[in-house]
Amino acid sequence: MSSVVERLRGALGEDVVSTDPAVLADRRRDYWVLSQLDDLQGRGAPQPACVVRPKTLADVVAVVNACRETKTPLVPFGLGSGVCGGVLVDAGAVVLDLSSMSAVRSVAPTNLLASFDAGVRGSDAEAFLAKQGLTLGHYPQSIGVSTVGGWIATRAAGQFSTGYGNVEDIVFSLEAVLPNGDVIETRGTPRASAGPDLRHVLLGSEGTLGVVTGVTFSIRRAPEHRVSAAFHFPTLEAGFDVQREILQRGWSPVVLRQYDSVEAQRMFSSFARGEDSLLLAVHEGPAAKVEAETRAVRDIAVAGGAVPGDAHATDHWLAERNHLPSFRQFLENGVMVDTIEIAATWDRIGGIYRAAVASLKSVPGILTASAHSSHVYRSGLNLYFTFAVHPEAAAGMRDSYLDCWRLVLKATVDGGGGIAHHHGIGRIRREWLASEIGDVGVSALRAVKRALDPVGFMNPGALIPDG
Amino acid sequence: MSSVVERLRGALGEDVVSTDPAVLADRRRDYWVLSQLDDLQGRGAPQPACVVRPKTLADVVAVVNACRETKTPLVPFGLGSGVCGGVLVDAGAVVLDLSSMSAVRSVAPTNLLASFDAGVRGSDAEAFLAKQGLTLGHYPQSIGVSTVGGWIATRAAGQFSTGYGNVEDIVFSLEAVLPNGDVIETRGTPRASAGPDLRHVLLGSEGTLGVVTGVTFSIRRAPEHRVSAAFHFPTLEAGFDVQREILQRGWSPVVLRQYDSVEAQRMFSSFARGEDSLLLAVHEGPAAKVEAETRAVRDIAVAGGAVPGDAHATDHWLAERNHLPSFRQFLENGVMVDTIEIAATWDRIGGIYRAAVASLKSVPGILTASAHSSHVYRSGLNLYFTFAVHPEAAAGMRDSYLDCWRLVLKATVDGGGGIAHHHGIGRIRREWLASEIGDVGVSALRAVKRALDPVGFMNPGALIPDG
Repeated sequence: MSSVVERLRGALGEDVVSTDPAVLADRRRDYWVLSQLDDLQGRGAPQPACVVRPKTLADVVAVVNACRETKTPLVPFGLGSGVCGGVLVDAGAVVLDLSSMSAVRSVAPTNLLASFDAGVRGSDAEAFLAKQGLTLGHYPQSIGVSTVGGWIATRAAGQFSTGYGNVEDIVFSLEAVLPNGDVIETRGTPRASAGPDLRHVLLGSEGTLGVVTGVTFSIRRAPEHRVSAAFHFPTLEAGFDVQREILQRGWSPVVLRQYDSVEAQRMFSSFARGEDSLLLAVHEGPAAKVEAETRAVRDIAVAGGAVPGDAHATDHWLAERNHLPSFRQFLENGVMVDTIEIAATWDRIGGIYRAAVASLKSVPGILTASAHSSHVYRSGLNLYFTFAVHPEAAAGMRDSYLDCWRLVLKATVDGGGGIAHHHGIGRIRREWLASEIGDVGVSALRAVKRALDPVGFMNPGALIPDG
Repeated sequence: MSSVVERLRGALGEDVVSTDPAVLADRRRDYWVLSQLDDLQGRGAPQPACVVRPKTLADVVAVVNACRETKTPLVPFGLGSGVCGGVLVDAGAVVLDLSSMSAVRSVAPTNLLASFDAGVRGSDAEAFLAKQGLTLGHYPQSIGVSTVGGWIATRAAGQFSTGYGNVEDIVFSLEAVLPNGDVIETRGTPRASAGPDLRHVLLGSEGTLGVVTGVTFSIRRAPEHRVSAAFHFPTLEAGFDVQREILQRGWSPVVLRQYDSVEAQRMFSSFARGEDSLLLAVHEGPAAKVEAETRAVRDIAVAGGAVPGDAHATDHWLAERNHLPSFRQFLENGVMVDTIEIAATWDRIGGIYRAAVASLKSVPGILTASAHSSHVYRSGLNLYFTFAVHPEAAAGMRDSYLDCWRLVLKATVDGGGGIAHHHGIGRIRREWLASEIGDVGVSALRAVKRALDPVGFMNPGALIPDG
């Protein structure tokens, strides 16, 4: 047993520090499909030294201090739903499993604030609030398999972001253990002009700059009213133009999602209309606002060439939206399946779509290449590419997969887009980070990393490219 | 002439590097009333070594490098409208006057993006966009005397923030020169999950972490429709409750401003109703949304005890809102006048109001102590205190002024509020920063400062408390 494990056991107790092989095996990696392939093909991540399941904030501080002092890699872990390889341990690492701290700390309906331990499962947080007529307004597809702290670490986006914002828009304050062992509690005010907003040191930090231990969200009352709608467009671009017009006229449906022809037929077979692109809309809020918005959006859509569709398509999506793909069966059949989310301004998004899909189609063994949009802004749109590739031999799966990613990110960068809308960087996008934030941005990030974690023990290998 | 001035003249030309005493005198300080008093009373800031008025980004880089290499304090300067002492030079400092770079770089109506040199005057930016039917949606009271880069450095808020967000919500990307001379251009995508958002290193940094040289905003189309409204409330708290209800039900008037009885009578004499508090509302956006919102807000207000008032009160405010106070005449009459903006959650804001006003009234020579709110959130509200104090002797003006500030900030901190809503820290709030972000927050900020500016030459004395 390594000395750090002995030290942690002595300090925290045997029950908190597990070396059970099954526990270790479950927390070596996240849900990244490449890690799953590597497991299946016998080159998966090794077992970490131990998994710590802390009971208190003091436990977390003790783990951070022990790892720093012994220069042991420390990997914060929520529920392991990441899909970019943000968690992938080396032998000897300590995994800090925050899901052991999962209390609802407080709910303040007057202030519409709700505080949680970082390890609270998203769907548990939402269910707790729903009983009081409240809601987070943040519904990532992973809500049932991710933690509220994980949302901070990855800079998550929810499916209703067009109306309610992304996680950075709903986080009120954070509690975290910095690499030096200090506990930071960020400001607890509605808004401040008091130096740089330190919440943004942690948002998107992927475990490299601290361990998020508590989150307070600016929540909402459950909406009074909801209306669904669906529209068919002869072309993808016609739908994009309508989404742009909706946002730029000042409307904010909580959901606008648009599927290309391939996905419309694959995912909405009973609703799709020929080769049309399908746009789903959800309106939520005070009834009078919802009614005005529903009418306005319908008018804009029809003026933009839409054929109104069956709103049950949207209800079908609402019912099925948290279904998560299982990669296992695909992998066992020699098929690599994944999604890649990117974002770009309006003038660039169509070109990126065409270039990325064309690139994917050039990959030998490609089975499908498609995309939908799921988050929209005044300035532009995200796209969520899906690909499946079946190379001739299982030995080629890894390279085929990396080819698909490389081609989509290259098409995105060449087309002037951003390489990561909401899944984060992890390891799959790490060497592309400079194309997003520039070499100077990477240098600045490294400088901040060195300032806060001079030992470099916090989740090494994730997010920040090697110097 | 100091060696740094000679070096800068050699590199940039005599026309760029001024030592004209009048030019130096004008840029020794910002609009902070205490600096104005100190000037009047003969203890004002000394002249800096020179004022550099750069023509190009390369000029800015050269100035940053020269000052870093010679360990010369460098003070970025916009139009000097700051009111917290963020600019207050020592002898020998170099002032970098960004207002010399004031080009509109580009406007992209399709993407609703507009890029400006940091030194563009806010009202010039807005006027340029207005000609194209566009708007920033960001209207600080200082819009005619502040730069777009200054808005970034101070983390500004606009008067229409309730509908359109604060500056951090409308900034799309930034260009800045870091203390090491590197030029950073932050991401140019609608939204990203690609590590910590580096825009937030600069937002609120008050010139201590870099020189903002360019700003791209996510702008808006000019709204289709606007409606004004006004309501009288028998108590301040009744109006706060109504503001809370409006926001928490999901409405977002672009403006909600509420004046206590004192300010209602002082500023809206022909509209005020007895001892009532006065709430102004502005609704903007698509006509159908504005109509629905106007009705809903009126219903909520009346249900909350409001007597509907004359909307001309709101139109009066709209017409007069960019009027700026001149402190000079007050100072010459021995009176210190200032405002202090703070913020707090709903459960705390009323208590802070009462405690702060009561504290101010205890100050010898106090003439007035009042407040209004101007920015509202689901979680709470800001307050904007105004005080005027006339101590017995002119020699007591400085201490009386500092007493007023100390008492309001103490009441805020004791009451669980945040000490700075949108004017920043500068020097007047510097020793209070830890009460906002904690000792750990201050330590983290210092670590970031040391990482990016190890020499410590960027605007020393502002924002960050001495270690």
